[in-house]
Amino acid sequence: MSLIVQKYGGTSVANPERIQNVAKRILETQNAGNQVVVVVSAMSGMTDNLIKLAKEVAPHPSEREMDVLLATGEQTTIALTAMAINGLGGHATSLTGAQAGIVTDGVHTKAKIADISPKRIHLLLDSGSIVIVAGFQGQSLEGQITTLGRGGSDLTAIALAAAINADLCQIFTDVKGVYTCDPRIVPNAQKIPEISYDEMLEMASLGAKVMQSRAVEFAKKFGVVFEVRSSFNHEPGTIVKEETASMEKVVIRGVTVDRRQAKATVSQVPDKPGVASKVFNAIAAANLNVDMIVQNVSAEGTTDITFTIHADELPKIERCLDPVVTEIGAKGLKAVGGIAKLSVIGIGMRSHSGVAAKMFEVLGHAAVNIQMISTSEIKISVIVDEDRVDEGARIIHEAFGLG
Amino acid sequence: MSLIVQKYGGTSVANPERIQNVAKRILETQNAGNQVVVVVSAMSGMTDNLIKLAKEVAPHPSEREMDVLLATGEQTTIALTAMAINGLGGHATSLTGAQAGIVTDGVHTKAKIADISPKRIHLLLDSGSIVIVAGFQGQSLEGQITTLGRGGSDLTAIALAAAINADLCQIFTDVKGVYTCDPRIVPNAQKIPEISYDEMLEMASLGAKVMQSRAVEFAKKFGVVFEVRSSFNHEPGTIVKEETASMEKVVIRGVTVDRRQAKATVSQVPDKPGVASKVFNAIAAANLNVDMIVQNVSAEGTTDITFTIHADELPKIERCLDPVVTEIGAKGLKAVGGIAKLSVIGIGMRSHSGVAAKMFEVLGHAAVNIQMISTSEIKISVIVDEDRVDEGARIIHEAFGLG
Repeated sequence: MSLIVQKYGGTSVANPERIQNVAKRILETQNAGNQVVVVVSAMSGMTDNLIKLAKEVAPHPSEREMDVLLATGEQTTIALTAMAINGLGGHATSLTGAQAGIVTDGVHTKAKIADISPKRIHLLLDSGSIVIVAGFQGQSLEGQITTLGRGGSDLTAIALAAAINADLCQIFTDVKGVYTCDPRIVPNAQKIPEISYDEMLEMASLGAKVMQSRAVEFAKKFGVVFEVRSSFNHEPGTIVKEETASMEKVVIRGVTVDRRQAKATVSQVPDKPGVASKVFNAIAAANLNVDMIVQNVSAEGTTDITFTIHADELPKIERCLDPVVTEIGAKGLKAVGGIAKLSVIGIGMRSHSGVAAKMFEVLGHAAVNIQMISTSEIKISVIVDEDRVDEGARIIHEAFGLG
Repeated sequence: MSLIVQKYGGTSVANPERIQNVAKRILETQNAGNQVVVVVSAMSGMTDNLIKLAKEVAPHPSEREMDVLLATGEQTTIALTAMAINGLGGHATSLTGAQAGIVTDGVHTKAKIADISPKRIHLLLDSGSIVIVAGFQGQSLEGQITTLGRGGSDLTAIALAAAINADLCQIFTDVKGVYTCDPRIVPNAQKIPEISYDEMLEMASLGAKVMQSRAVEFAKKFGVVFEVRSSFNHEPGTIVKEETASMEKVVIRGVTVDRRQAKATVSQVPDKPGVASKVFNAIAAANLNVDMIVQNVSAEGTTDITFTIHADELPKIERCLDPVVTEIGAKGLKAVGGIAKLSVIGIGMRSHSGVAAKMFEVLGHAAVNIQMISTSEIKISVIVDEDRVDEGARIIHEAFGLG
């Protein structure tokens, strides 16, 4: 008998029919001889509706009350899911985050899980019940309802799997797993059978929107093996786990594309200590997120600082930096959109040399111009024109044999 | 400084605009120098929508999960109401039933309040906050979410007022108070300024659908004075309290009409011990509610047993009683609808004689035939033809000077 945690996202429980399908799948899992703990999200669209309702009542609703409001979304799903299982002759019990023993800090709308006391879950499992836990929510030590922020249900599932020492954690979603590239860009992209936490983290932060980074980081920290798979079929998905020796044999695990980037350059900055911090402090104070940063020292004692931001933040960057450019005595600021980030990810890079060279070479052959480069131990990212990025992704996917 | 409990029903918080109006009224109450605890119901229609959703998932949803589901209704309202108050510059904190310390027994969907631990409410009040409590719900000692059944938010308000020893409890609703008769039947019906618990209980159980009897009984038991008033204007409503000497001076407080009644007669029942219990045990076993019962012994050693039920239950009564009629050797069963119950209520009856005589006389003059009579210390009810009941109510209302 195995102990399995399953998580079903909002699209998987979007309406009564889908909830009944999920109930059948959960019962099948139990009937195969397993103990089952299920984490569910709010029905798709419900959280957005609640946020809309809140804004109609008050333009800037307080975060404490927002948590009380949003927690009703998952509470609705746990009750309906338990009812559906019981209606099929099964035995299920729902628990809110607080009832499930999920203790968080007191930071409303983005609380961190501090502790899980799974006593009640174990008692219910021992009595033969399936346990349905509300994702995304918990309770602070002061007895306040808290929520974990977007994607928090994944985090609940991973954290519960760690706390109850589950044998398997399955994240059911509306995609079939993690792919070597977005199949809408590269039609012959393949589902990846196994991926390491670090690769998954790079994929997540680089635009493969399967899971939030926080949940993956938590899984890595506590060594929780999990599988990302579809709730609409019975095919195996992608297993995410600690890297193994055989994983390193694959040089590149996947290719990601991040669109709608913009590039800003502060030119001829006097090359002396403290100027870079002035630039990036001003950007941080304006709440703008910088991604890649490149700086080259030129011959004449000045330097150019170039960085990328999301294209949506382009209008804000000039307002934010124009005073700084004058203050530090730089020549000027130039900010343009229309670029995208193309990345290759793989822990195999650590032991295989020449990955960057090969990537640059195939892009060069195709006359895709590289404007910026950034690397980490297991990924290489380049900035190219947005209208060439899909073509770039296809030729790299092909060149590294991922198709 | 007074401590005031206010309760707002579903129609008073039906949409964001009404919630904002309620928020203004609550703030006015606090700004007048009071501490305020507010109990809210689910937004009008929400509970029915949740029940519909549950039935789509499972035809007979379990009661435990129904409570988990329905409790989200009031939880949504407390968050929105607190947001609205905070948005107006006030300071409000929402509490679920469990957080407010409302402890119930474990009978799901119709739990009884066992205890209230108002420590958290007092702490919040002392910090200057308005406290918004979810009506209709509590938590059992085992940590299960429970609900109190329909009308449970009134009960929450009354019980909280008792637990925190409030100076005043105001039940805001969509009617202006308790009237001497339904104004749709008697156009010159008057709002009653003060009414005793016992009169209110008779009015509630006899068809004046302002409040559930359970909440009034609780108020009587703990001596909680409360006011029923409209959330749509600022007029005073009806104060419900222990009877006073001056209340007895009014002979009749009000007239009520209960439509859609039916009458069943088991004729020529052998007049011996145990036959009545056979009849009513059979009715109870079929879950039918009997209201009035009349029995006369005739000369020949047999008796007729007549009782009233709701007209909706008419089809079931024959199925239920035909075997019993044979068993006890009665002559037959006759059941007909088309009747209604007309009642006068007033604690003044105790000290004023001739109320019944006067009622029967004015009905007689108007040729409204009385088919059955039932009395208690403070009410007289008669059964008349349903198509004459409105006329009967008008002439009695007039005869007792209530207009």
